[in-house]
Amino acid sequence: MSIRPSFAQPVALDKAYRLLNHGPTVLVSARHDAQDNVMAAAWSMPLDFDPPKVAVVLDKSTWTRALVESSGRFALSVPTVGLAAMTVGVGTDSARQVADKLARHGVHGWRPEDDPDAPLLVAGCAAWLLCDVCVEPHNQQAHDLFIGVVRAAWADERVFSGGRWHFEQAPQALRTLHYVAGGQFYATGESVRV
Amino acid sequence: MSIRPSFAQPVALDKAYRLLNHGPTVLVSARHDAQDNVMAAAWSMPLDFDPPKVAVVLDKSTWTRALVESSGRFALSVPTVGLAAMTVGVGTDSARQVADKLARHGVHGWRPEDDPDAPLLVAGCAAWLLCDVCVEPHNQQAHDLFIGVVRAAWADERVFSGGRWHFEQAPQALRTLHYVAGGQFYATGESVRV
Repeated sequence: MSIRPSFAQPVALDKAYRLLNHGPTVLVSARHDAQDNVMAAAWSMPLDFDPPKVAVVLDKSTWTRALVESSGRFALSVPTVGLAAMTVGVGTDSARQVADKLARHGVHGWRPEDDPDAPLLVAGCAAWLLCDVCVEPHNQQAHDLFIGVVRAAWADERVFSGGRWHFEQAPQALRTLHYVAGGQFYATGESVRV
Repeated sequence: MSIRPSFAQPVALDKAYRLLNHGPTVLVSARHDAQDNVMAAAWSMPLDFDPPKVAVVLDKSTWTRALVESSGRFALSVPTVGLAAMTVGVGTDSARQVADKLARHGVHGWRPEDDPDAPLLVAGCAAWLLCDVCVEPHNQQAHDLFIGVVRAAWADERVFSGGRWHFEQAPQALRTLHYVAGGQFYATGESVRV
């Protein structure tokens, strides 16, 4: 797949933080010099509303981090229950050791039509955020912390519309994931309204 | 309540990151000069394993942030479904305007026995992390980002034991919360194993 799926609808930038506000595990993608990689990250969060910023921890050992540093960009894709095995797979294998990592784990995706060098937006995810790195050498070196300015965002309209998640009306396989350890996640659960 | 509840058991520091790994909303507490405050924060994450560190975003307008800056400490408490209304309450009201904020929202808690000036560990939560601020003026000023080194951690043994969450065996009211917006959360949901 290389074209945006029809159910992936743009999200207004002032609502982009809501895609991460509930603390889901994410996939981090980067592309440089025609090389793509994707890894999993449990440690990410929104950092600002306007302009929308995100923070994500990328270990120095990862090839994705090298691509992020070279290209100055990354994407976050928010995986679903249906992608739990892929998420563990790309979070375990390194492209430094496993040359066909993305193919092995069945990672496919799309890119904005006018941006063929964008990081891969992973198919089957519930939301996507395309970010430019806000370069901060101290944070990157001392804390492995990368800050991104969100330039565009999309979400699967079956679970996110009108600036809100609506998991109740969709199959369980479209719920987002919250990683614990050792191949175990919790799915996003019941809605609680105050 | 001022004594640690019997079900609040210590968590080994090398497992403390797991208390936040699944992306729950947290309560942030601080105490300075015998003044306590508690606020809610959806934007927090683990930042390191060893020593365990956490990151949390604290807006400049908050009184809790002022207490954190004065005391150099904060605590994170991980609220449960049973505390959803309190969590919205302390996330909405500011102690700058509402002098009896904690009493109004029924916030009670405990402190380590040998540390009477510790930030409040909020009763009814599922886990607690006591942190020293790792002072970083740029992050605090530019990003409202505070980094804490976790000095001690506890969890409710009914939902966390052996270094893992076990929500399946406990009442729904003990599940943790993931904030969306406008008084809506998602509870931590079904376990998904790969």
